Amino acid sequence: MPEAQLSGLEALKREAAVRAVALVESGMRVGLGTGSTAKYAIEEIGRRLAAGELSGIVGVATSEASDVLARQVGIPVEPLDPRPLDIAIDGADEIDPDLNLIKGLGGALLREKLTEVQARRFIVIADHTKLVSGLGEKAPVPIEIARFGFLSTIERLRALGLGGRLRQPGAQPYVSDNGNYIFDAALPQPCDALTLERTLKGTLGVIETGFFLGMAERAFVAGLDGVREVVRRG
Amino acid sequence: MPEAQLSGLEALKREAAVRAVALVESGMRVGLGTGSTAKYAIEEIGRRLAAGELSGIVGVATSEASDVLARQVGIPVEPLDPRPLDIAIDGADEIDPDLNLIKGLGGALLREKLTEVQARRFIVIADHTKLVSGLGEKAPVPIEIARFGFLSTIERLRALGLGGRLRQPGAQPYVSDNGNYIFDAALPQPCDALTLERTLKGTLGVIETGFFLGMAERAFVAGLDGVREVVRRG
Repeated sequence: MPEAQLSGLEALKREAAVRAVALVESGMRVGLGTGSTAKYAIEEIGRRLAAGELSGIVGVATSEASDVLARQVGIPVEPLDPRPLDIAIDGADEIDPDLNLIKGLGGALLREKLTEVQARRFIVIADHTKLVSGLGEKAPVPIEIARFGFLSTIERLRALGLGGRLRQPGAQPYVSDNGNYIFDAALPQPCDALTLERTLKGTLGVIETGFFLGMAERAFVAGLDGVREVVRRG
Repeated sequence: MPEAQLSGLEALKREAAVRAVALVESGMRVGLGTGSTAKYAIEEIGRRLAAGELSGIVGVATSEASDVLARQVGIPVEPLDPRPLDIAIDGADEIDPDLNLIKGLGGALLREKLTEVQARRFIVIADHTKLVSGLGEKAPVPIEIARFGFLSTIERLRALGLGGRLRQPGAQPYVSDNGNYIFDAALPQPCDALTLERTLKGTLGVIETGFFLGMAERAFVAGLDGVREVVRRG
C-alpha cells in the first residue's frame, strides 16, 4: 500500500518496520513476528526479496497468521528448529526504558517467546504510543493458562494481587495457537516485572507470560518526528 | 474381578486402593486419579456407592480415561472448579521417604497436579516397588513441553544436565490430554528435586513437571506383608 494511503499511526508503524528490516542480510534465518506492526516487516522482507535486494532468506513464523502472510509475499518459511536465528523482528504492546516488553495481546506469546529467545538479535518495532515508563502502565500483561482447571488458576492469579479478566471476545474464551486460554492481567503500579514473572512461572496452571524481559537488543520507535533507535544498555 | 484372579502385584495395588477409599465419606468431592492403581480406587468407590455404603459422592477426574471409568461404575463426575476437593486418591511412579512423588508416566500429569493441589487430603496408593530412597532412582520424571519449538526446549533441558528422551511410542510423539509433548527425563543421582523443579518451571517451553513435592498427606503402600500406611512428617 503506498504510504500516502496509510493513516498516521499505520505509516509510523511501517516506517519502524522498514528501518528494522534494513538489518536483514541475504542468507539470514529470520524470526517473523505477529501483529499489526510485524506485518509491515514481513511485507518489507517480501518486497526486498522481490526487488532482488535480498536472497536466501528463511523465515520462521511466530503464528499461523504470520506463516500465511510470509508465504503470500514470497518468503520461504520453515518450522522452528534448535538452530539459532540470525535476527527476529516483532512488535510489542509496551516497551519500558530498558527495552523490557509486554507482548501477546495478539495471542501468540508462547510461540513468539520460544522463537525470539533463539535469535542472536531481537529487534522491536513500534509506534511511540507503546513507550511506557513502567510495564503495565497502559496495557495488561497476557498470561497463557491451561484450559483444564482455568477457574482455579485464575483464583491463584487473583491471590497474587492481579486484576484483569479472561480474554473472551465472544461467547467462548479466546483459545491461543497452543490451545490455551489467556488471562489479561492488570498489574499493580509500580510493578517489579522480574519478580512477578518468576512468581507467575511458578504458579500452577500458568503456561507462559507476556513479559519479555532482557531479550530485545534494540527498538525502532516511530514518532511524529521520525524513527528513534533505542539500544538496550549494559 | 475377584481377588483370586488378580496377579500378585495387581492384588497389592487393589489392597492399597481399598484402604485409601475407606477414607472417603458420603457427600465428599473426590479427585479421581489416573493409571493402573488409581483404577482400583475408582472401582472401589463405585462398589461402595452400589452397595449403599456411600452416597452423594461427586468425582472430579484427572484424565479422560478416568472420567469414562468413573461414569461406568456409577460415580457422578463434574469438571474441576475452584471449590476445594475433600480428598484425592491417585497412584505414583515413585515415592520418596518424605512422600515427594514422581507422577505422570501415564501422561496426565498437568491435570493430576491441577486437581490434586485443590484437595484437602491427597492420598497416594501404590505397591512397594514404587518406594525409592531418592526421586529419579528408578523412574524418569516426565516433563510436559510445548509442541511448538520442542527440539529447542529439549536442548534447554539437556543443557541442565538431564538425560532422557521424548516420549514416542510409535511413529509420532505421544500427545498429552492438553496437546503437549512429554520428555521423560533421566535425573542425575542424587537429585535435589525442589531446586530442579524450580529451574524447570523457569525453563522456556516447559509446561509442567511430574514432581509432586510436599503435596501428599499419606500413602498406602502394599507389600507382600500387607498394606503399610506412611504419613508425611511435619
